[in-house]
Amino acid sequence: MQATRVRVLGRSLAASRPTAITRIPPARLRLQSTGTGAEASASAPPPPPPVFRPSLWKRFLQATGSITLVTLAGGGAFYYYAQKDKTPGPQLPHDPSKKTLVICGSGWGATSLLNSLETEDYNVIVISPKNYFLFTPLLPSVAVGTISPRSILQPTRYVTRHKKRQVTVIEASATDVDPVNKTVTFADTSEIQGAVSNTTIPYDYLVFAVGAEVQTFNIPGVREHACFMKELEDAEKMQRRFMDCMESAAFPGQTSDEVKRLLHMVVVGGGPTGVELSGELHDFLEEDLRSWYPELAESVRITLVEALPSVLPSFSKQLIDYTESTFKEAKIDILTKTMVKEVKEKSVVLQMPDKSIVEVPCGLVVWAAGNTLRNVTRDLMAKLPEAQNNRRGITVDECMRMAGTDGSIFAVGDCTATTYAPTAQVASQQGAYLARVLGQLAKRDNLEYRLNELDAAPEAEKQEREQAEKRLAKLEKLRPFKYSHQGSLAYIGSDKAIADLPFFNGNLATGGVATFLFWRSAYLSTLFSMRNRTLVATDWLKVKFFGRDVSRE
Amino acid sequence: MQATRVRVLGRSLAASRPTAITRIPPARLRLQSTGTGAEASASAPPPPPPVFRPSLWKRFLQATGSITLVTLAGGGAFYYYAQKDKTPGPQLPHDPSKKTLVICGSGWGATSLLNSLETEDYNVIVISPKNYFLFTPLLPSVAVGTISPRSILQPTRYVTRHKKRQVTVIEASATDVDPVNKTVTFADTSEIQGAVSNTTIPYDYLVFAVGAEVQTFNIPGVREHACFMKELEDAEKMQRRFMDCMESAAFPGQTSDEVKRLLHMVVVGGGPTGVELSGELHDFLEEDLRSWYPELAESVRITLVEALPSVLPSFSKQLIDYTESTFKEAKIDILTKTMVKEVKEKSVVLQMPDKSIVEVPCGLVVWAAGNTLRNVTRDLMAKLPEAQNNRRGITVDECMRMAGTDGSIFAVGDCTATTYAPTAQVASQQGAYLARVLGQLAKRDNLEYRLNELDAAPEAEKQEREQAEKRLAKLEKLRPFKYSHQGSLAYIGSDKAIADLPFFNGNLATGGVATFLFWRSAYLSTLFSMRNRTLVATDWLKVKFFGRDVSRE
Repeated sequence: MQATRVRVLGRSLAASRPTAITRIPPARLRLQSTGTGAEASASAPPPPPPVFRPSLWKRFLQATGSITLVTLAGGGAFYYYAQKDKTPGPQLPHDPSKKTLVICGSGWGATSLLNSLETEDYNVIVISPKNYFLFTPLLPSVAVGTISPRSILQPTRYVTRHKKRQVTVIEASATDVDPVNKTVTFADTSEIQGAVSNTTIPYDYLVFAVGAEVQTFNIPGVREHACFMKELEDAEKMQRRFMDCMESAAFPGQTSDEVKRLLHMVVVGGGPTGVELSGELHDFLEEDLRSWYPELAESVRITLVEALPSVLPSFSKQLIDYTESTFKEAKIDILTKTMVKEVKEKSVVLQMPDKSIVEVPCGLVVWAAGNTLRNVTRDLMAKLPEAQNNRRGITVDECMRMAGTDGSIFAVGDCTATTYAPTAQVASQQGAYLARVLGQLAKRDNLEYRLNELDAAPEAEKQEREQAEKRLAKLEKLRPFKYSHQGSLAYIGSDKAIADLPFFNGNLATGGVATFLFWRSAYLSTLFSMRNRTLVATDWLKVKFFGRDVSRE
Repeated sequence: MQATRVRVLGRSLAASRPTAITRIPPARLRLQSTGTGAEASASAPPPPPPVFRPSLWKRFLQATGSITLVTLAGGGAFYYYAQKDKTPGPQLPHDPSKKTLVICGSGWGATSLLNSLETEDYNVIVISPKNYFLFTPLLPSVAVGTISPRSILQPTRYVTRHKKRQVTVIEASATDVDPVNKTVTFADTSEIQGAVSNTTIPYDYLVFAVGAEVQTFNIPGVREHACFMKELEDAEKMQRRFMDCMESAAFPGQTSDEVKRLLHMVVVGGGPTGVELSGELHDFLEEDLRSWYPELAESVRITLVEALPSVLPSFSKQLIDYTESTFKEAKIDILTKTMVKEVKEKSVVLQMPDKSIVEVPCGLVVWAAGNTLRNVTRDLMAKLPEAQNNRRGITVDECMRMAGTDGSIFAVGDCTATTYAPTAQVASQQGAYLARVLGQLAKRDNLEYRLNELDAAPEAEKQEREQAEKRLAKLEKLRPFKYSHQGSLAYIGSDKAIADLPFFNGNLATGGVATFLFWRSAYLSTLFSMRNRTLVATDWLKVKFFGRDVSRE
């Protein structure tokens, strides 16, 4: 209705204009034609309804306005959900009739399990020396200040407080597991301790997800002089030391050799962590240090050392080549088939491919090579010597049950020895799988309890018992864990990333700037919470606007 | 005109409706009414030129669109300036004919001086153990995670790299000043050191702005067991320890007395730092800990200890009362006229107003009381024993020149003993004042140099010499420093702040939520850079959306 009337108006408006215009060509042309159109329509018996056409500018404004309103509404919804996340409600208390499920760890496996677990079925207790989950893939970004440390932390309570039944979170290190008496002993190992700082609790089910620690292969000096890249404090230490090297190189009177020594960064380990860290260091150098330390930037050198014949052995050949050529352009030296023999305070001793030994002066060594078992894992394995004899880690069956136990201990992630790589992706899928298994076990336990009740009451209907027994038989069988590889991603610096993605039974290998955007969005969506997603995205924006911080904190 | 025409349409529409409503579809209705409208306008002798009036909704969209565009344009300008800040251009090199100005420190005095200084006049060298400026008033916010640590840091090079002439920034601690030979000795005291880590350089002018360190009054246990609130690492340590107390209290089997002990936070010092920290702790408790540690939140207690008869002695009486009543509501205990006698690992020993001695169990003691001189300041003063005999700090004349020197050493900020309070505001004004003084001195030095040239060339015009001498005479006199008090501000928790502002020769004392907004905007505008302003504002937003992080990092 409106539209038609508008058309009438449009015509009369057009008709009134010509007198006003006495000089101007293209506009005139337009008006004339409009005029002609009007006449033509006047001659036609039913006047064709003319249309008003708001100016392009106004329509543009309207479109922009709509988009803004949608954005604002989205912002409102975002705020609403953020508030909901921030203020969890009351929870059911622990129920003595439920079984106790103890989860050791707060990494990928444990947190993924906690995310998916229905906690009504159990009294859940989480024990970990960190009261947070750390999104490890972004650690190299934290090490150069692209992302601020707390953006990739998620306090474990942010997950557990949203569960239906209360979950006890204990910040402590598990020191001993007794698989016979089914108890876990743990201790508060932090600086401040209460009167009670050591205790033992019983479990019905135990999920052992303590991860691994850094493997130094007993190479001398690694623990003393190198930075690791496993925990948050490692990344912070590396950032502090890197800036310390810059400042020491800026000290007046430093010789040019000493400046070169201080600014030579050696990254050991050509896996994704080492490669990403080298790439991030290069970005830091190009995008920030060049501005603030122009006299030193030319002297910064990055060397990546790998014992195997190539970096990123788990990626496709073409992506390895792409990474190598990108690094060459970025002036990052790659030394493959090169072994670290010793790390000293001011140098690293390398065995080159030709077996010669070279001592390379450097300011900083970052050790991003290999995992080894934690003591608590070794101790637990030693208690089941027959079933647990794999030096790589805990042997588990296809349902992640620790071999040699009665099925009450599950193990996931880097503390296990499986055919899968020790990656976040594997641990995370195992955790989600365990949540399903534990749900099934809870159902089975409930049924068994009911059957016992029926046994005690012989007058109970035969039918119910039979049905229950049938259902129980179905529940007895656990579906084995199957890993579904979602692909491998790595950032290689200079706004480029590489990705190996499974694709229709084949493989899609891509690298470049588009892949970098994919890398960013994949990481954002992998982060467990809206909070962390927003924080990381904000950090990326911050760096785009203001660059990375060069304060040595 | 518009309005009338619309009314015509409205009327014809209304008139046409009754007949139309015989049940038949909206589309039909539309056509009929259009017909009527067309007839109506046709019947009028000079058809009143009808105007299109966009609906309210469209106009609203247009307005929103315009606002968005303006916002986007603002964003573009912001991005442009951020990029400019991020990429400083080339600078003039040091010029051997210029005098050397050494600035010791990178706090309020030194940074304010650097901000205002025209560096073409000097070869400037900055020596400080921190390569950044720390916005100290927001430290209490960092300690509870309201603001992330790096948001209140500004690398010193972000200032110096934008100066016309190069400024040398050296991360080192000044260890000795020789006022006779005019040299400064300094050492790299950080973890990583180069071959050269100790050197001495000559100066023509020295600005001594090394600040102060924490005064413990030799009370036993303070250094060992208390957290300070002076440097960034103090705030981070306090945050870590606070969360450690929470987690230790959450350890299973802790007695209720021990839980209360661990969760009792004692803040010593009723100045702005202590008051703000107490307020921030209270906010952290109410806004975050209650959600994540519901079973412990009730046991958290905050006590503020002050030796004087009231907290915030520099504020008006009514604001002190307001603070006290706000704290009472917030259940923060204030103990005035109470002295700390000893700090132990798990308690603090207090001497109460009635002189009785009480040992109060607590989990954490934060020491926010008093300043004392650094060793390098004491050593420098000891070299001029006659002129420098004030134990509170360096005696300076009205132009901030150190007494007992030939005017080549200036001292500003907390290392001086003046009639002003040791505040950021004073140091900052002194720094800006010194920039003017040093500019004047550079002009004087240039003139003197020119006069010497004229002396050497006796055929020079008498007139020029006279003029130069006149100008020199004018420049000889330095205008003394005058402090202009801009007011005192403090955040007291629960979204309330207090402000004592000078107002028409009087004083305006306000407190409350509006003052809190004023406090925020005042702090934002006091931050030295757009970068820091944005980072802090973003942090405030983050906390609004997601709350504070409870990870013990």
